[in-house]
Amino acid sequence: MHGELIGDRVVLGEDAITKLYSTSYYGRLKEGKLELSLVEAAYLLKEGKISIVHGEKPLDFKEFFVIASTLMKNFELKYIVYKDMRGRGYYVQPSVTDFRLYPRGGKPGKTRAMYFVRAISEREPLPLANILHYLEIAENMRKHIILAIVDEESDITFYDVKKTSMKGETKFTGGKGDGTLLEDRVIVWDSALVKVLHQKGFFGKPLDEERLQLSLVESAYLMKKKVLKVTDATGNVIDVKTFTKRASEIEADFGHKLRVYENLRENGMVAKTGFKFGSHFRAYEKVESLDRLIHSKYLVHAISKDHVFLLPELSRAIRLAQSVRKRMIFGYVTGKNVGYIDIGRTKL
Amino acid sequence: MHGELIGDRVVLGEDAITKLYSTSYYGRLKEGKLELSLVEAAYLLKEGKISIVHGEKPLDFKEFFVIASTLMKNFELKYIVYKDMRGRGYYVQPSVTDFRLYPRGGKPGKTRAMYFVRAISEREPLPLANILHYLEIAENMRKHIILAIVDEESDITFYDVKKTSMKGETKFTGGKGDGTLLEDRVIVWDSALVKVLHQKGFFGKPLDEERLQLSLVESAYLMKKKVLKVTDATGNVIDVKTFTKRASEIEADFGHKLRVYENLRENGMVAKTGFKFGSHFRAYEKVESLDRLIHSKYLVHAISKDHVFLLPELSRAIRLAQSVRKRMIFGYVTGKNVGYIDIGRTKL
Repeated sequence: MHGELIGDRVVLGEDAITKLYSTSYYGRLKEGKLELSLVEAAYLLKEGKISIVHGEKPLDFKEFFVIASTLMKNFELKYIVYKDMRGRGYYVQPSVTDFRLYPRGGKPGKTRAMYFVRAISEREPLPLANILHYLEIAENMRKHIILAIVDEESDITFYDVKKTSMKGETKFTGGKGDGTLLEDRVIVWDSALVKVLHQKGFFGKPLDEERLQLSLVESAYLMKKKVLKVTDATGNVIDVKTFTKRASEIEADFGHKLRVYENLRENGMVAKTGFKFGSHFRAYEKVESLDRLIHSKYLVHAISKDHVFLLPELSRAIRLAQSVRKRMIFGYVTGKNVGYIDIGRTKL
Repeated sequence: MHGELIGDRVVLGEDAITKLYSTSYYGRLKEGKLELSLVEAAYLLKEGKISIVHGEKPLDFKEFFVIASTLMKNFELKYIVYKDMRGRGYYVQPSVTDFRLYPRGGKPGKTRAMYFVRAISEREPLPLANILHYLEIAENMRKHIILAIVDEESDITFYDVKKTSMKGETKFTGGKGDGTLLEDRVIVWDSALVKVLHQKGFFGKPLDEERLQLSLVESAYLMKKKVLKVTDATGNVIDVKTFTKRASEIEADFGHKLRVYENLRENGMVAKTGFKFGSHFRAYEKVESLDRLIHSKYLVHAISKDHVFLLPELSRAIRLAQSVRKRMIFGYVTGKNVGYIDIGRTKL
């Protein structure tokens, strides 16, 4: 079959409709002809199913590929992803987010497409705002979002992205007492308060048998709840505002970290440091005792609304979370609320 | 036993020498008296082995702890680490890098100390220069370096750090041909060159049966070796300098990434992308075929000489490497050479 490159489409005659469209769902109908996207055309050219001319000139694969890559941003990325999905027997069609993917065994016209797929280079910084935008599109169309990240050697990693909420069963009330801020932690000396905080609220870590160390977020949270009064080493009381300001100097992302911590706590989750996993928190739905913590299902990392993901870092975070059987959750502050997105590797 | 806080030392009388120094190796002798560091004194105070006065005033644990933390930067960190090591039965003495640790069963005066331990807060940015400085001290004294990183909940993770070299058995010579730079990868169209590059040199990834995609570092390396000539989409030849400049615009750390890649290759290692692990490269000592790659032992991340480690990221990188049974190696460019350091979690 012969196609002609016109603008950024390859147009084929009526014969192609039966052979490519009706049986294999390539292209779209337009005024009795079949229009292929550049990616579809490159794939069919490679498969030897079509030939392509530009004006009078026939194009070989290299010539077409090079022209297509000047016509379309990220053409070669989209080609790599399209080829991979088609090569595994999926039906794929162009969509607002690059591709619409049909479930295995499903067909356009018969089955609903399940996924919106977005092809992204590992080098492309990915703003949270874009992810939220894709999620919104997907939600409106009742689909899921898959990010197909192409690394520098053109290997593809698929991530599915969804909104989620964090709910647990641990509520803490009560206790009252003092602590001392020493550099980047607060020490609680009063053993009655230590007991309540540690055993009922699962806060902090014992300095020894009688004294408790609280992290900066834990301390700020307990100060705001009016459980804890904090002084400095010379005995002067520090108010919440000053404390938060000082903590933000120690830890640049303290502001949104605290907001996410508060939200987790208010929703009944127990959050402990996720340092060993390179994330802000590991989060527990239910804790009975800090001495025998059950497995935490989540790592939660707090990000700002204008966060831009670097994909190698995202890849590392998710890979690590999954290696310890946890979900990687990003908590972002949006006005007075906190939203959560869950990003995990998936196999097609 | 009674001690007196004088400056940043706690001084005890002659009786303490037998009871604390001779049997348990606390403190140092000074003019017939025993001098304890603040950390040693806090530990012995908590254990109820000594009491401390400041002038005439007796100090309880809280009072001493608060004063000590104003006298010494990071006092509470050092206390946490010291207490942990002593609590597990190790002999520990102050040293230039915080502590000198004796091997299990070893004793000061009888055994050589094995490790220099440095206590660091997870929040403290750690310049590569500092690590290299510790390594130099350790090398001169024939000791190893351990970083004791204290997270916000005062949990300690121990890392051992050593210099290493990267040597493999894969040498590549030969081949000559063209490629086209399309955005962030180079495509090689000539199937003879494709075969040599892919099967003999283990470069690139097939775009399809006949064509090969090379990453930017692979391409720059092969251009410098005069194996590859690269043109842009319009057919103009790109020289190495222009290519490197363009690649550095796409990838900010391209410069040192390329230097480390070249060094690995020149030392017979095969380096492939480490994107899935959040690092620049996975590195193989020996490759027989890219279709059945054996397990790679190393992840290598290229950093600049003035790199500053953020410890949560370092923690994540090492944890991930170890979860896939690889060593985490950092390659840094130093003048004309490339140095490698190997950082791994260790248990005391």
